[in-house]
Amino acid sequence: MTTIPAFQHHEIPTEEIDRRERVNAPLGAALRELTEATIRADVDDDVLAWATERMAEITARLQERQLAGAFGVHFNHEGRSWHWGNAAIGLRNPVAPPMQVLTGEDGVVRADLDLLSRYEGPPGHVHGGVTALLLDHLMGVTASAGNARPTMTGTLTLRYRRLTRLGRVHLEGRIIGEERAKVFVGATLSDEDGVTVEADGVFVVPRWAR
Amino acid sequence: MTTIPAFQHHEIPTEEIDRRERVNAPLGAALRELTEATIRADVDDDVLAWATERMAEITARLQERQLAGAFGVHFNHEGRSWHWGNAAIGLRNPVAPPMQVLTGEDGVVRADLDLLSRYEGPPGHVHGGVTALLLDHLMGVTASAGNARPTMTGTLTLRYRRLTRLGRVHLEGRIIGEERAKVFVGATLSDEDGVTVEADGVFVVPRWAR
Repeated sequence: MTTIPAFQHHEIPTEEIDRRERVNAPLGAALRELTEATIRADVDDDVLAWATERMAEITARLQERQLAGAFGVHFNHEGRSWHWGNAAIGLRNPVAPPMQVLTGEDGVVRADLDLLSRYEGPPGHVHGGVTALLLDHLMGVTASAGNARPTMTGTLTLRYRRLTRLGRVHLEGRIIGEERAKVFVGATLSDEDGVTVEADGVFVVPRWAR
Repeated sequence: MTTIPAFQHHEIPTEEIDRRERVNAPLGAALRELTEATIRADVDDDVLAWATERMAEITARLQERQLAGAFGVHFNHEGRSWHWGNAAIGLRNPVAPPMQVLTGEDGVVRADLDLLSRYEGPPGHVHGGVTALLLDHLMGVTASAGNARPTMTGTLTLRYRRLTRLGRVHLEGRIIGEERAKVFVGATLSDEDGVTVEADGVFVVPRWAR
């Protein structure tokens, strides 16, 4: 039933991808800052209307040449990948913090990031669904054992101990078991006062990748 | 342990809030279009650099007067609320589609929305964590019975049947049981080929609201 994802292969040298990232990183950062400034704007309506028009001008210029669809996942012959549109880690995408996920020598997968105004749910706190988004992504990376194998989320269970404050958060995930094509992952998300969300996930290695 | 959320009360007439929404809706729409255009941009680096500079100019102007922190949740004496920064439904926030959640006369809570490029995970498909974000929000609204009572997510379980295609999705939630301060909610998310994610949640009415 599940479509095989269409990863796109390119004969682009890694150093050229690195160079393009140095152009796209400030672009994504500027869009995130603009998003934060828009949400927290307390200026007069005429300034908001001015900002609306200026945004439309930039959009029109960027639309002069667009990809046919969503950004997708790209990789080159050296295994370097780029997915600048990804909702959790995409460089160009303000939906993504972007999260940087690191695997330690102890096998624990970690991410530290600042959740700003655009992740709010209850006043001053992180939307519960945003913690789910971040945990799902980190747990997927954990299950894939450093991208050694693709995995898909099968079941995800989140237990919310208390609200998560906006600001610095820490995520940790580890593999707690494996059984045939299933990988069991445990993870937590913490704010500065400790663990706020506990998660368990069953990830599945898709048939085409076994 | 859980901090009582600080909802902010204002003596602003509902018609003035409606008027401000008519200014802020196009602002949010322009920022979403800019986000989509940025992710899908296939223009030369000098245009990306130009866009980066223009974004910074708008940011600077909006930063001339900013709210002290995140947007928060506001309401007036008539019970009209506004939360333009919310990560699922915030008018100003491109993290939010924004989702519009409607409760039917049959008690079923529904949302229909288009998930564009910024919600991508696997190529051409919705990030699993984004489906979690949307389901968590819709299920919270379901549990709160049309905002008749505040609820917080206790436990959320998501079962991923298959990948969700980017594009039109439909969400449905309903209360399947109640027990003291707990509300049990079931929900699904579907793309045009049917249900892709099933969810069960236990929501809790916080002590201060019982």
